[in-house]
Amino acid sequence: MTTSVNPRTGEAFGPDFADATADQIDNSVARALAAFPIWSRLSAQKRAFSLNAIADALDSQLEILVELADMETGLGKVRLTGEVGRTTFQIRSFAQALLQGDVIGQQLDVAVDAPLPIGHPRFLRTKTGIGVVAVFGASNFPFAFSVMGGDTASALAAGCCVVVKAHPAHPQTSQKVFDIAATALQATGAPDGVIELGHGFEFGQAVIRDPRISAGAFTGSRSGGRALFDLAQSRPEPIPFYGELGSVNPVVILESAFSEPAALSSAYLDSLLLGNGQFCTNPSLLLIPENSVFLTELGAQLKVREPQPFLSQATMELHGRNRAQLAARSAREVLKGKSAPSNGFFATAEICIFSASEISTFDFLQNECFGPTGIVITYKELPQALRILMKLEGALVGSLFTKELDLPALEVVELLSAISGRVALNAWPTGVAVTSGQHHGGPYPASTSPLHTSVGINAISRFLRPVTFQGFPAEFMRP
Amino acid sequence: MTTSVNPRTGEAFGPDFADATADQIDNSVARALAAFPIWSRLSAQKRAFSLNAIADALDSQLEILVELADMETGLGKVRLTGEVGRTTFQIRSFAQALLQGDVIGQQLDVAVDAPLPIGHPRFLRTKTGIGVVAVFGASNFPFAFSVMGGDTASALAAGCCVVVKAHPAHPQTSQKVFDIAATALQATGAPDGVIELGHGFEFGQAVIRDPRISAGAFTGSRSGGRALFDLAQSRPEPIPFYGELGSVNPVVILESAFSEPAALSSAYLDSLLLGNGQFCTNPSLLLIPENSVFLTELGAQLKVREPQPFLSQATMELHGRNRAQLAARSAREVLKGKSAPSNGFFATAEICIFSASEISTFDFLQNECFGPTGIVITYKELPQALRILMKLEGALVGSLFTKELDLPALEVVELLSAISGRVALNAWPTGVAVTSGQHHGGPYPASTSPLHTSVGINAISRFLRPVTFQGFPAEFMRP
Repeated sequence: MTTSVNPRTGEAFGPDFADATADQIDNSVARALAAFPIWSRLSAQKRAFSLNAIADALDSQLEILVELADMETGLGKVRLTGEVGRTTFQIRSFAQALLQGDVIGQQLDVAVDAPLPIGHPRFLRTKTGIGVVAVFGASNFPFAFSVMGGDTASALAAGCCVVVKAHPAHPQTSQKVFDIAATALQATGAPDGVIELGHGFEFGQAVIRDPRISAGAFTGSRSGGRALFDLAQSRPEPIPFYGELGSVNPVVILESAFSEPAALSSAYLDSLLLGNGQFCTNPSLLLIPENSVFLTELGAQLKVREPQPFLSQATMELHGRNRAQLAARSAREVLKGKSAPSNGFFATAEICIFSASEISTFDFLQNECFGPTGIVITYKELPQALRILMKLEGALVGSLFTKELDLPALEVVELLSAISGRVALNAWPTGVAVTSGQHHGGPYPASTSPLHTSVGINAISRFLRPVTFQGFPAEFMRP
Repeated sequence: MTTSVNPRTGEAFGPDFADATADQIDNSVARALAAFPIWSRLSAQKRAFSLNAIADALDSQLEILVELADMETGLGKVRLTGEVGRTTFQIRSFAQALLQGDVIGQQLDVAVDAPLPIGHPRFLRTKTGIGVVAVFGASNFPFAFSVMGGDTASALAAGCCVVVKAHPAHPQTSQKVFDIAATALQATGAPDGVIELGHGFEFGQAVIRDPRISAGAFTGSRSGGRALFDLAQSRPEPIPFYGELGSVNPVVILESAFSEPAALSSAYLDSLLLGNGQFCTNPSLLLIPENSVFLTELGAQLKVREPQPFLSQATMELHGRNRAQLAARSAREVLKGKSAPSNGFFATAEICIFSASEISTFDFLQNECFGPTGIVITYKELPQALRILMKLEGALVGSLFTKELDLPALEVVELLSAISGRVALNAWPTGVAVTSGQHHGGPYPASTSPLHTSVGINAISRFLRPVTFQGFPAEFMRP
């Protein structure tokens, strides 16, 4: 059973959501499977029409959605209003891509009359929706990576039907978004089952093992994502599983860009503490030149930042365990924020300072501490920082601040691009624009599928399977 | 230890190849990893030059390669000469794609000055080689899917270095191809380690588990491929594994195209018995209208076809086990070919005839019987055939023979495309042209990664990982 909890107070509120029963799970998947041949054969124009209708319906209920989500997640109304806007923008972007017709990328080879290996019949390579997709809602983005978030919207654009597992940290928001989307779909004449929603741990476990499911998409913790990935890969018939499991994102500041301690501290804390640090693109690891003035300024600014709540008790407890591991590594200095309230789900912000020259084991740099915790490593010479970068695991994003793209800077860019899906120049890593050129992924553990992105138009390609038609007449097109 | 065996006689010949030791395995991977930053940063033009040099070198040694491979595989000199041509054509096609510059598919978003979610900085989405790739040579294509086959060539084109595990059925051919390729690479100035070769079971097991390996590619049996896939996915850091595990490929003949029993029987047997049936695109499952004249003709023609050797004792034994399972299903009738020689690795060809209406369990239709064994299912009404198609697993290719693309034909096309990577119209499934529009893959077990192809230019994309550069000046390009 799932019940909403206000993270600012720790108090439960609102209706209970019963865990889906085995019959309900079976029915959800069966409805989605029945809808798939209909939805996937609709014209791109019709699917775009339905997607736009969902976006319009969500926008029209902005206030109630933001209010619900704020009570369940404590993320604040300003951020959540922006997130609904991002979510509907994203849905409309996928619809727009369908209308422009650049999603499939058909390839045509005309017949060639020649001896082998050059000669061949006519080939049309096109793509088709992969099937029914299981989507797992994220805790930290109740709209943009949940029921109608990027995974669902891109799968629907690809012609897939979607079975969503609601995140237990925001069941009411999930249910409300689902109701709005399902009603909008129905009004545009889409079949029942194009999108399905279920609550409860067992729902997710059963769905990812179900032979009628053809792919999975997940945004969340490394342990949860890896468990689902393992289930997906150990099925009798393994399926693609697009997990975005979080990341320790390095930010390197070169001496040339390291000035104005007050402005720099402020910008860093804005990024580090955004949404209480519960962002997969959080600047978890800051590499800076040794500078005591900056650290003093940073400490002073950190003390006056207001504590923000965790998304849930579970998130707070996981952060507590990770922070305890970090504390055992005896940082040179620990900067502490304003004391957190004792009720609700809070932690006092902390930034642990290490010297690059004193670091000899690197495992603690590979452990994401999801929440208001930062690691700062100071270096005296750049090679000390490069040595750290070479020990990092896959990351969603790496940032570099520099005045010039000179050789040392390019060396950092090379190392960041070797482990990251995105390299940002003179920009903090938080903030992931929804554009064609975006890539939100990266080598494991940033992503379980380093070739794919969960943000931007290319996200659709995760759910499209190529099929080549050989020797068909020119007028033959997939319905 | 691996030694060549002549499958026509069962006699061993030539040198022994020792299994790679742990040190040798470690050194191979280390050399490939050291070469990767150099090879991957070479210009596309330079990599294309090296690839073309390999193709030229292989062509220049055609006779000796064909002779060696014929003695090791028994595939015959005509077929093997064609296969070398296909292999070098394939290598040159990847080089050509590099020169044309259409491999990466860069995407550029200029900066947009607007409020969120619309505004964003400049993004350049490009792609980079994924790292060192482990390639597992196939038994049935000693050139086209082995040491310098499509997997290796496409990985090299992507800027990856490759560690190849030689197939034990053709160690001398593997070693010779490797020596030619390595010498050609060296002559073009490529670093040592761009391609590495090893022999022995343990070599493959160690390589796929090695943390320095970033992807795997395999063509072969379902059991072997699944075992490697499981190793790749259960690593602490899972990696993409592109396995092509074989397939039961359905061929449907509609009444309108079902005439001329002699010509049809001959064409079917040509495809079924090509290379002793050891093709992943073998027409394993033929669905035809009930017709006793055709079956009589087919039986008569089968009797006079010459037996061909298996690739190896292991292939013969696996075929024997699969055929025994099929025999247990009591076919309505079994057509038998000419008696096979008792020495060497042979089996008498067999075609098992079933009636669609009498089939109630379908598992035996999902079990590839790799070798000179066919299944023919006769139907009285088309829906009987459709019912069978709906029970099949993923396939590399499905064929349809029909006079017209009328509604019943389109229904078959729809069912074939739902399970196959390629649908061929009025053509037998064997013969996979190397073109841009080719797709050689399909839902599991045809492939462990249904979004990707192992034949055609798109094969390169398996080994390219996207990276987005945010906020970099326009003149910035990846080296």
